[in-house]
Amino acid sequence: MIKTVDPKKVSTQEFHSYLLGAVAPRPIAFASTVDKNGVVNLSPFSFFNAFSANPPILIFSPARRVRNNTTKHTLENVLEHKEVVINIVNYAMVEQMSLASTEYDKGVNEFTKAGLTEVPSKMVKPPRVAEAPVAFECKVNDVVALGKEGGAGNLIIAEVVLAHINEEILDESAKIDPFKLDAVGRLGGNWYTRANYDALFEIPKPLATKGIGIDQIPQEIRNSSILTGNNLGRLGNVETLPDKEEIKSFIQTNQHVQEVLSKKDKTEITLSLHKYAKKLLDENQNTALAWKVLMAISYY
Amino acid sequence: MIKTVDPKKVSTQEFHSYLLGAVAPRPIAFASTVDKNGVVNLSPFSFFNAFSANPPILIFSPARRVRNNTTKHTLENVLEHKEVVINIVNYAMVEQMSLASTEYDKGVNEFTKAGLTEVPSKMVKPPRVAEAPVAFECKVNDVVALGKEGGAGNLIIAEVVLAHINEEILDESAKIDPFKLDAVGRLGGNWYTRANYDALFEIPKPLATKGIGIDQIPQEIRNSSILTGNNLGRLGNVETLPDKEEIKSFIQTNQHVQEVLSKKDKTEITLSLHKYAKKLLDENQNTALAWKVLMAISYY
Repeated sequence: MIKTVDPKKVSTQEFHSYLLGAVAPRPIAFASTVDKNGVVNLSPFSFFNAFSANPPILIFSPARRVRNNTTKHTLENVLEHKEVVINIVNYAMVEQMSLASTEYDKGVNEFTKAGLTEVPSKMVKPPRVAEAPVAFECKVNDVVALGKEGGAGNLIIAEVVLAHINEEILDESAKIDPFKLDAVGRLGGNWYTRANYDALFEIPKPLATKGIGIDQIPQEIRNSSILTGNNLGRLGNVETLPDKEEIKSFIQTNQHVQEVLSKKDKTEITLSLHKYAKKLLDENQNTALAWKVLMAISYY
Repeated sequence: MIKTVDPKKVSTQEFHSYLLGAVAPRPIAFASTVDKNGVVNLSPFSFFNAFSANPPILIFSPARRVRNNTTKHTLENVLEHKEVVINIVNYAMVEQMSLASTEYDKGVNEFTKAGLTEVPSKMVKPPRVAEAPVAFECKVNDVVALGKEGGAGNLIIAEVVLAHINEEILDESAKIDPFKLDAVGRLGGNWYTRANYDALFEIPKPLATKGIGIDQIPQEIRNSSILTGNNLGRLGNVETLPDKEEIKSFIQTNQHVQEVLSKKDKTEITLSLHKYAKKLLDENQNTALAWKVLMAISYY
């Protein structure tokens, strides 16, 4: 059953909760700003992402509080001094980041409260967080108010002028290694996710030559009771299906498939082949091999 | 060592790779659009997030390709017909979503190619994805080009007019359950993360009454060789420290702490108490209890 919700017919609090629950996992901007007197503030925001590489643009939104329609010190600071350092949060500092989200009084430096280390920036006034794996020094190009009521976002459109990357998170080709980065993402309620270990998986990029698509997969394979949508997605990402010669020579070299084909019941053979192909796909093996297994049925 | 990168001094491709690697995990907008003739397109974007609850605003960015500065069909469609359905992607459909990111020719319907089911929307023309756990029907308020070169983002500022939530992902209080949602997030390279199982963790929200902060934690605890930054973050999120009477009566009821305190060497006792407190904090137990353990040293 589908629950259909008209945002104009429910409270802001209720719709806010659906947005926080559904649009996930969200990256976290740990934003360092200064007011006109240079007093530092540090606060996390998960209405945040990158939006452009050239120019390099990051956007985050300190929303007006749903509770009482007040604004956050970060927004006030950015309006007074149009610079921000956006620090990336890894698992090792997530509790300190959460503590920094406390609504301390204006003038309280959350670096001190959260036990984090200020490092002077090179091109902007707000300091960066020494413990952060990556920090982006930014100039604020624009601040766009999306509304005036509680829950209204304020887009802080920030252009990166300098990036600091801890070399410990780089792999041997100087790219960021997700396992070493150990990033955390925000979900609804009190939930976070750690983007590391078994939670990480790879999907080969779709073929530039264009995969055949699931619509071109033979009906009996598309309607398999064994193969999942993810398996079909992978199968649709091949440029061509194996031809008769390829299938034939594959069967000649694969004893397991020969044994399966020697059975009498066609349904049983189909199920066995589909299970074998699913195993290959789930183990991230060669998609072409899975195709040969599936199409071996034509030699029944 | 810190690698400092000036975006103006490296290629767009190189800086793009740092942004994709560092700003993570990113939620995925699986965007359904139509052109002026009503031809449907479906494509995923990870430069995406929620930014406001009232009005409910989602923003995603189909950037100009870094490779050849061409634009995507989604952007062209949204400029022709200012509506979009943003579908949320869960693990069960991630390979189909990836297949839909293939650069099929204009006019090819990725619903068909990816084997996904079109459901007519109620308030906008583009259809939603039946398989998606959540879908947001949106009017496009604005399209903002962030630049003209390859890699330039295009903000599609979309206001939610209707949300569809599969009731199977709701918990008993009708909120979205992250375990049932089973969302995926995007990282750099070919990497994705599954926000579920052991990757999920909770952090209690900071106290409205304001925690003491790490700066108010006694020096010998702050400088502990046992406690991590995350442990200190949790310890800083209490309103007051236990008083002498509370610590005393805690020791009287805790045999393990009594045994530790009966040892002779103060360093050994401190290490034992810190290890015990760390265990309580790591197991998400009562922070007040961990504080009593740590402060029991005053009865040495």
